Amino acid sequence: MEILPLKKIPEVDPRKHYSAINTAVMDVPSMRKHSPPSHSDDDMIAITTQGTTSEAPVHGNLNPLQGFGVSGNHMDPEGELPPGFGQYEDFQTIDWQRDIARDRTRHRHIIKEKLLSVFGRMKGAHDAWSGWVCVLLVGIAAGTCASLIDIGASWMVDLREGICPAAFWLNKEQCCWGSDETLSYEGGSGECKEWHPWSQILGGGRSGTGATVLSYFCYILWSLFFAVLAAMLVRVFAPYACGSGIPEIKTILSGFIIRGYLGKWTLLIKSVGMMLAVAAGLSLGKEGPLVHVACCIGNIFSYLFPKYGRNEAKKREILSAASAAGVSVAFGAPIGGVLFSLEEVSYYFPLKTLWRSFFCALVAAFILTSINPFGNQHSVLFYVEYNRPWMLFELLPFIGLGCIGGVIGSIFIKANIRWCRYRKISRLGQYPITEVLAVAGLTAMVAYPIHFTRMNTSQLIYMLFSQCGPADNHELCDYNRNFTNVNKEMNIAAAGPGVYKSLWLLAFSVIIKLIATVFTFGIKVPAGLFIPSLAMGAIIGRIVGVGMEQLAVAHPGLWIWGGECGPNSFCVTPGLYAMVGATAVLGGVTRMTVSLVVIMFELTGGVRYIVPLMAAAMASKWVADALGKEGIYDSHILLNGYPFLDTKEEFGYTSLAADVMQPRSEPLAVLTQDGMTLGEVEQLLSSTDRNAFPVVVSKESQFLVGLVVRRDLVLALENAKSTQTGITHRSPVVFSSAITRTTLPSEEESSPPVRLSKILDMAPMTVTDHTPMETVIDLFRKLGIRQVLVTHYGRLLGIITKKDVLRHIHDNEDDGFGGLGF
Amino acid sequence: MEILPLKKIPEVDPRKHYSAINTAVMDVPSMRKHSPPSHSDDDMIAITTQGTTSEAPVHGNLNPLQGFGVSGNHMDPEGELPPGFGQYEDFQTIDWQRDIARDRTRHRHIIKEKLLSVFGRMKGAHDAWSGWVCVLLVGIAAGTCASLIDIGASWMVDLREGICPAAFWLNKEQCCWGSDETLSYEGGSGECKEWHPWSQILGGGRSGTGATVLSYFCYILWSLFFAVLAAMLVRVFAPYACGSGIPEIKTILSGFIIRGYLGKWTLLIKSVGMMLAVAAGLSLGKEGPLVHVACCIGNIFSYLFPKYGRNEAKKREILSAASAAGVSVAFGAPIGGVLFSLEEVSYYFPLKTLWRSFFCALVAAFILTSINPFGNQHSVLFYVEYNRPWMLFELLPFIGLGCIGGVIGSIFIKANIRWCRYRKISRLGQYPITEVLAVAGLTAMVAYPIHFTRMNTSQLIYMLFSQCGPADNHELCDYNRNFTNVNKEMNIAAAGPGVYKSLWLLAFSVIIKLIATVFTFGIKVPAGLFIPSLAMGAIIGRIVGVGMEQLAVAHPGLWIWGGECGPNSFCVTPGLYAMVGATAVLGGVTRMTVSLVVIMFELTGGVRYIVPLMAAAMASKWVADALGKEGIYDSHILLNGYPFLDTKEEFGYTSLAADVMQPRSEPLAVLTQDGMTLGEVEQLLSSTDRNAFPVVVSKESQFLVGLVVRRDLVLALENAKSTQTGITHRSPVVFSSAITRTTLPSEEESSPPVRLSKILDMAPMTVTDHTPMETVIDLFRKLGIRQVLVTHYGRLLGIITKKDVLRHIHDNEDDGFGGLGF
Repeated sequence: MEILPLKKIPEVDPRKHYSAINTAVMDVPSMRKHSPPSHSDDDMIAITTQGTTSEAPVHGNLNPLQGFGVSGNHMDPEGELPPGFGQYEDFQTIDWQRDIARDRTRHRHIIKEKLLSVFGRMKGAHDAWSGWVCVLLVGIAAGTCASLIDIGASWMVDLREGICPAAFWLNKEQCCWGSDETLSYEGGSGECKEWHPWSQILGGGRSGTGATVLSYFCYILWSLFFAVLAAMLVRVFAPYACGSGIPEIKTILSGFIIRGYLGKWTLLIKSVGMMLAVAAGLSLGKEGPLVHVACCIGNIFSYLFPKYGRNEAKKREILSAASAAGVSVAFGAPIGGVLFSLEEVSYYFPLKTLWRSFFCALVAAFILTSINPFGNQHSVLFYVEYNRPWMLFELLPFIGLGCIGGVIGSIFIKANIRWCRYRKISRLGQYPITEVLAVAGLTAMVAYPIHFTRMNTSQLIYMLFSQCGPADNHELCDYNRNFTNVNKEMNIAAAGPGVYKSLWLLAFSVIIKLIATVFTFGIKVPAGLFIPSLAMGAIIGRIVGVGMEQLAVAHPGLWIWGGECGPNSFCVTPGLYAMVGATAVLGGVTRMTVSLVVIMFELTGGVRYIVPLMAAAMASKWVADALGKEGIYDSHILLNGYPFLDTKEEFGYTSLAADVMQPRSEPLAVLTQDGMTLGEVEQLLSSTDRNAFPVVVSKESQFLVGLVVRRDLVLALENAKSTQTGITHRSPVVFSSAITRTTLPSEEESSPPVRLSKILDMAPMTVTDHTPMETVIDLFRKLGIRQVLVTHYGRLLGIITKKDVLRHIHDNEDDGFGGLGF
Repeated sequence: MEILPLKKIPEVDPRKHYSAINTAVMDVPSMRKHSPPSHSDDDMIAITTQGTTSEAPVHGNLNPLQGFGVSGNHMDPEGELPPGFGQYEDFQTIDWQRDIARDRTRHRHIIKEKLLSVFGRMKGAHDAWSGWVCVLLVGIAAGTCASLIDIGASWMVDLREGICPAAFWLNKEQCCWGSDETLSYEGGSGECKEWHPWSQILGGGRSGTGATVLSYFCYILWSLFFAVLAAMLVRVFAPYACGSGIPEIKTILSGFIIRGYLGKWTLLIKSVGMMLAVAAGLSLGKEGPLVHVACCIGNIFSYLFPKYGRNEAKKREILSAASAAGVSVAFGAPIGGVLFSLEEVSYYFPLKTLWRSFFCALVAAFILTSINPFGNQHSVLFYVEYNRPWMLFELLPFIGLGCIGGVIGSIFIKANIRWCRYRKISRLGQYPITEVLAVAGLTAMVAYPIHFTRMNTSQLIYMLFSQCGPADNHELCDYNRNFTNVNKEMNIAAAGPGVYKSLWLLAFSVIIKLIATVFTFGIKVPAGLFIPSLAMGAIIGRIVGVGMEQLAVAHPGLWIWGGECGPNSFCVTPGLYAMVGATAVLGGVTRMTVSLVVIMFELTGGVRYIVPLMAAAMASKWVADALGKEGIYDSHILLNGYPFLDTKEEFGYTSLAADVMQPRSEPLAVLTQDGMTLGEVEQLLSSTDRNAFPVVVSKESQFLVGLVVRRDLVLALENAKSTQTGITHRSPVVFSSAITRTTLPSEEESSPPVRLSKILDMAPMTVTDHTPMETVIDLFRKLGIRQVLVTHYGRLLGIITKKDVLRHIHDNEDDGFGGLGF
């Protein structure tokens, strides 16, 4: 029999851990048996070679906590169970019902104690408040962390261009604070004397061809340096810190265990790597990874409160709140963050969690505003205020933008998934650092010449969202100005040549951005998708917006304007189009709906513009859903084969439980409630790799008694062998507590029985063989169970695990019932 | 045997319907058998005497639609079932799983057709879009309806004071539109020439003691007239139109059927009654009833789309969206409306519904803004903009306000419930119109002398929320003014005597409001709680706010102000305190959390003030929860005995399924799959009143085969008796389809068998007897099942219905596990 090295899990070679995750659904046994990773997982091997050895102490420290004797089996609270019961191995799915029941048992215990002593009362109060205290701490830490990341990233971004010799730790804006020159948002212009570009420091002067070439080289060199640093850090210290993290967090929140994914090393490396990756000029954002960072914080703080740290189901409540805080600090949008957590990330979201998430998101946003890294009085990233209402006719271009956004989103997803699949199956995956270097170098080389791509993407988005005011003198705002002679009528909204030049550059930029992002999302550095998607959409929207604006200038009398456009007024806001376009593309990529609109609404703060945003988001989602079913996160979940059971999808199968259950042909591996010997049980354990074994009255009758989890069984047998004397492989294994008396007489002649009634779950979930799979899937999704037993007229027929359900969904995916998500 | 008059349900005397609702949980059989209503339900009899005879045609018309041959039994789609299968009787709980399965069957059918013909494709498209079209229509109708109600109510409110002889259909503001006199928000002052108060029309002049007395009498007379009209309308045409409707809508959305509650008569009478009740000066609002009105609209429109109209579970998706639209138009807060629907009202809320609810709420708000009954450019009821940030120290008074709000909320709930219970058990309930008259008369008499209570409550709230500007000349804004001499320094924030006088009057008003609302909520007119709660809170908040302001004036140097307060500046915004106070009291009364904060945030449109609102809402909820577990809606649900299984509560019982199941002692009433005669089955049906009967292999073995619903069984037996020939009471009843062949030989000698395999549900939900009740309750709540069968080792032991679960929860309520909701 193969006894698992349970205590040694943290020391298991992390490269196998990581590779195993990719085959987790279809290949769990291979993982458990430490089989060599399959070819398709080679991509991570190079990275994870020295990987999480530094990660291990995190769990090494925390494991003892987890093993603390919380009654694991809620059915039998009086029994003393050896430590480790009710815990999970890595890459296992948790049993929500059991964990929640465990928490209730604990809660009852505390309430009982509360009535007995003052200490009990204090303990009760601590228990009652710990959830709130925990999310408060998470909020504070997430806000602080986001501020530090913002400050660090902004400093590093400017470092590519120059330095502040007076105080090297200042970024360009801070450096120029004292200067009386105005600093516009454009990257190239508006420099102040205090700020020294590298060309000047290296002796090439501040301007001229030589200076430009020198700046270009410095820019590329810095980009490469930052990129390679980020990739090295990820590779050496925390392989889990790469990518956006949202697909994995969705999987974790749905009840999967990935040890170390939310550890402190991941947190640290992801934070630092994020700044470096942004500063490397790669086409990525730090907003998605901020959700991962917030979840790491949530995970770490949850260990301060045993109620959450020791209970995987309860811990996920904290993680849901943390992910809300992550979005909240990423965009300064607390309500949007909560809805994002509800709509996109979370799985089990009771209303209590809604309230806590809101609190957590709000605290995080409040801390961020107090530290104020954006340097303005608003707590949001791209705060804009438009002073013109939109016209009803404009809904048409808005919906058009939505459709464009949906198409671009689908193209992006398909191209990115194809590239990622190619990376997985080709040798490319073995050279992640080289890949990062190549992508960073090419991006920097192409991006520098065009100032729209050179500048920080957040600044670009902000510029595109904004209205042109009198103080804006960049080319995009090259409109006819007439500030001096108020009597002379002039077409103030007519575009100058600078605007047209900008439009061409913007059109070119969006192509560069799209290609760069396809190749960037998936490389082994922290990389988010929000900002590149927003930027693409904002560019397209701005182009359409300027087009509409000039149409209004050329034909102000058209009926479509409803008489609101005159030659002397701006009546179309190109910035609003940029915002609508950004919404559309982000919607097409992520398939967010309500949360997307609310996030964008919180950026402007005006209820008035919800309708355009909503129209674009809806059009985008419908078009994108028609072109491809999954959003980018779900596509990556599928690509990586995570065991994720989507709560949103509706399944229209006609199959019944009997069609899906295992085993189909050979008899099911079952235990009988008595009458089996230790040897037979061990033989069964080694001959099959099931995670749970049904216990029946007898092999002949197959009437169901209960269920035993493999891990508990192995632990209990080991425990019995080490503590009980006289245990041989002929000792009977007894699951029933009632029938023991009848077996007692035989005890003298043979070896004493191993009594396992304590680990027997007498309340397994059962369905009949005629139950439609829709109902079975609902059971899995809504109750979070791990397996369901199938019976017919009371007799056990088979078992359906989450794995079987996922395989069934996968097999039936192309039967045409996916549809448009209606 | 007692055969139920199934086809006659619409004609059943509505007074019994209504009385039955109060005993629905504990007394279902009495309802079905048309037993005389118990003493405690006498209160509604007088009202409903002539009640819903006019309501009946609604269902009479719609019933044929419902009976359309959609395959009711998803297990056996090939069989032809008589019409009526899969439908529900009044006051029954729906089976969510079965309804959703039915919808999927229908969906599969449409998809199959789609591939066959153009017509099929059109049908498929119509089906796919019908949900969106439906919520669009609901949104438009809800927005329009809310606008009309607003316009009507505002006209009627002003009618109590006077009339516009030039155009009687104008309200005071519109009447004075052309006048050059300014019209302040105060009721008494700021009259224009075009507007004639009643005293003037009746010859008493515009001012003087005589005019005042005359106005007083007219005011009271109009109030009584409006009140009695509202009460009569409700009594005669739609008894369901009284009250706020939210407790009942919660119950309906949780899966209960109350026919006529959301019918067109209820819609009409509630809309008209709402205007009348507001105009009668009663201490109530029209915001809660707007939710009911929107749900009526949702219900009516759902019948246009058979997908929703014929499927109770799907219909509830539309109702969830409609309730969001209701709050959206009530406050101009679409996001808040969606969250209200999610948090407070809805039961089954898939993400698809979230998205549609948002759309619906947005459309409704958009229509409302376009019709623009509030007469301002903002779509919200109390739009305010504060220009001063709050100080960290102010969190302390905000939290204090939260605590006060929690206390007031609890007091209100306890007093109101006590009064409502008294009404139920005493003779008072028999005179609902007299009660309305008495309350209206007393309220009008007391309210008129104080202008804060006399004015429209919405206007009062708006005034309290606002900052005092230079144009405000009412007493509450009696601050020292110094507009002429800019050089002379003056303490502009010091309050004048008018402010202090106002404070006394406000303090008096809040007591009047509290008492009036306790007696008003529950009388038989449409009555919402939002506005009175907000008003009470706003008054208290304003008082505290002015206190803080004057503290800052008196001691501007205190450290708590952080140096932001000078003698020359307002540094405390009393309006913000009013808003925080309003949040606190509304939170204490309804126990809303996130939705409350978001609604209040949407009123101001500033992220900055979320933190104070949140602090107050949290403090309020905690304090109120500590003083009494249920909010006002849940209290009324309990009071009326609706079968509502709260999704929010957590239960900490140690009991198992075996402890709760029925029957406890005598053997369970079961059917066997064959071997029973028609006579035996009919005997069983008449001897017990269970809604469902398990079918077992044989009486001896008790192995479970399936479940038959009483209604289906009765229909099928009737159907068999009328269509099959030779059916006697000795005919065997056969549920199994496999064993029929063995019984065939005997067919010749005896009567032919009644084959009922089509109505047998082969997939009943089962649990083992050891399953903890927590899991069973989760099954009921999350899957929406109606009953669960309890087995032991495969043998049927008993059955647990929703009724049993509710009784169990009720019995265990006082075991100390309710707690603070942590």
